[in-house]
Amino acid sequence: MAVLGIDLGGTKLAFGIFNEEGKLLYEESFPIENRQGDEVGQLITDIFLKIRDSQGPGVINSIGISVPGIYHPKTGSVWAPNIPGWDDYPLLNEIQKVSKEVPVAIDSDRACYILGEQWQGNAQNCLDAIFLAVGTGIGAGILINGNVLRGAHDIAGAIGWMALNKPFRKEYVSCGCFEYNASGEGIVKVAGDFLNKMKDYSGSLKNKLPEKITSHDIFAADESNDVLAKKVINNCIEYWGMAAANLVSLFNPEKIIFGGGVFGPAVSLIPAIKEEANKWAQPISIKQVSFEPSALSGKAGVYGAGFLALKNIHP
Amino acid sequence: MAVLGIDLGGTKLAFGIFNEEGKLLYEESFPIENRQGDEVGQLITDIFLKIRDSQGPGVINSIGISVPGIYHPKTGSVWAPNIPGWDDYPLLNEIQKVSKEVPVAIDSDRACYILGEQWQGNAQNCLDAIFLAVGTGIGAGILINGNVLRGAHDIAGAIGWMALNKPFRKEYVSCGCFEYNASGEGIVKVAGDFLNKMKDYSGSLKNKLPEKITSHDIFAADESNDVLAKKVINNCIEYWGMAAANLVSLFNPEKIIFGGGVFGPAVSLIPAIKEEANKWAQPISIKQVSFEPSALSGKAGVYGAGFLALKNIHP
Repeated sequence: MAVLGIDLGGTKLAFGIFNEEGKLLYEESFPIENRQGDEVGQLITDIFLKIRDSQGPGVINSIGISVPGIYHPKTGSVWAPNIPGWDDYPLLNEIQKVSKEVPVAIDSDRACYILGEQWQGNAQNCLDAIFLAVGTGIGAGILINGNVLRGAHDIAGAIGWMALNKPFRKEYVSCGCFEYNASGEGIVKVAGDFLNKMKDYSGSLKNKLPEKITSHDIFAADESNDVLAKKVINNCIEYWGMAAANLVSLFNPEKIIFGGGVFGPAVSLIPAIKEEANKWAQPISIKQVSFEPSALSGKAGVYGAGFLALKNIHP
Repeated sequence: MAVLGIDLGGTKLAFGIFNEEGKLLYEESFPIENRQGDEVGQLITDIFLKIRDSQGPGVINSIGISVPGIYHPKTGSVWAPNIPGWDDYPLLNEIQKVSKEVPVAIDSDRACYILGEQWQGNAQNCLDAIFLAVGTGIGAGILINGNVLRGAHDIAGAIGWMALNKPFRKEYVSCGCFEYNASGEGIVKVAGDFLNKMKDYSGSLKNKLPEKITSHDIFAADESNDVLAKKVINNCIEYWGMAAANLVSLFNPEKIIFGGGVFGPAVSLIPAIKEEANKWAQPISIKQVSFEPSALSGKAGVYGAGFLALKNIHP
């Protein structure tokens, strides 16, 4: 028996076929290009049909899908802000029309990240662990007593909105304080803010900011001891440390796992983040937690979707 | 049948006898004075024996105890920083020596506050609700899917340590950033900090700060439009709003319930706190939550202990 895990992102889709033991038997990924609305739903059903035709019916016993937004299990619909036409898209229903008797489970990307780590990554044997996903945006997948925290209306884990420095600034309105200051996009914005105040800066980032740059350029400049990059990265370490400290004080978890595109290059900063968190967090709780990088890095979503599929048939 | 709920605080002890429907049949409270270690344990067993002797054996079917610290269910021991000799006090064992066949359940005060509200207060019919207790210190009792969040080592909910404003200050070392700025004790400290910077202040608090004052004096001065008190209270509203916003973004709860000695006088500020939280929190989640005062105010701990006792025999 095998399960199909599909990780739908804002710009690309990846899928994997897993056996029951969590071994990844086959994987593939491709850009979703300019698809929107039903076209994206059809992309997913096409994958299922293609695999069923190549493997034969009955091989795929369950389907799991990770979505870049919020999944509402009561209605089977998805809100995905980066996919046009997915304000309230009836994904479950659309997939079931084609998958027929093969069961389908869906959850948010942040939920799938921590499920992936629980299944085959760094949260194996953990009942209380948190995946802090720092990419274009920021989200947290939170495992409590072995289960993903959903909240009253399925929006739990929206940590990009965490308030970490007063007073409130208008820049936080569209994305939240933590995300503005320490997401992949935020890092570039903060570099622009700092540049405006550093009149005598003449380093490599000067003529590239704000548009011709990504957070990865700033990490690279930091490696070469660029003074602006160092200021930006130290600012990030402070925010990541404070946010992680708050997770520790509130949830008293066994592990915090750092993943997403930024971890990535920021993995080497995890000890500095722990040092910052040490200052702020509940002092007993911070001694009981370990800060680790994702073991699955870019594949946490596909693994999580696979585990979702498996749990749906073997709860 | 009846249950006994005992709320042990740092300076006083309250208890209540409840029937199965949650009606408070009898209550009493008194200071624990200078008792320490075993003397405090014995105070609790004495209450049980007194009630058993007056009501007759078999009337009290279960005992619940709320403790001002951390309870470790695996060992039955309590860490209570304000009770001398209770670094690791074997409370369960001590009570069971006397209670014999009557079952005993123990939990932290913050857990009991939200359980009390769930049983007979403002969290009835809620599966996801949070009690933000602001007294001398600050803690949060967090209900997830109907159950109290414990964490990996029973220290979840230590929200007094929440990082809300950078950079880190040495004053936060012993109590945490949020507690320093917005607990009952913190309000007085912050008033002292502000006074040092307001050289031309000549209001009613001037000669009382920092020692001859409590947070209640500051609330009273705010009512009379004292300029220093107003500054302090506005600062608190900002911190309470940010902390509540962070709970909303992370947990997506149905309700946040404000209690503890400070709420109390700060209950009238709840709309202003909601307004502040509105700026920071995940925008969908903040629309789904209601901010309310505790319905049980000073008795949330006794009710919670009673519910703990009842749940222990009727899970």
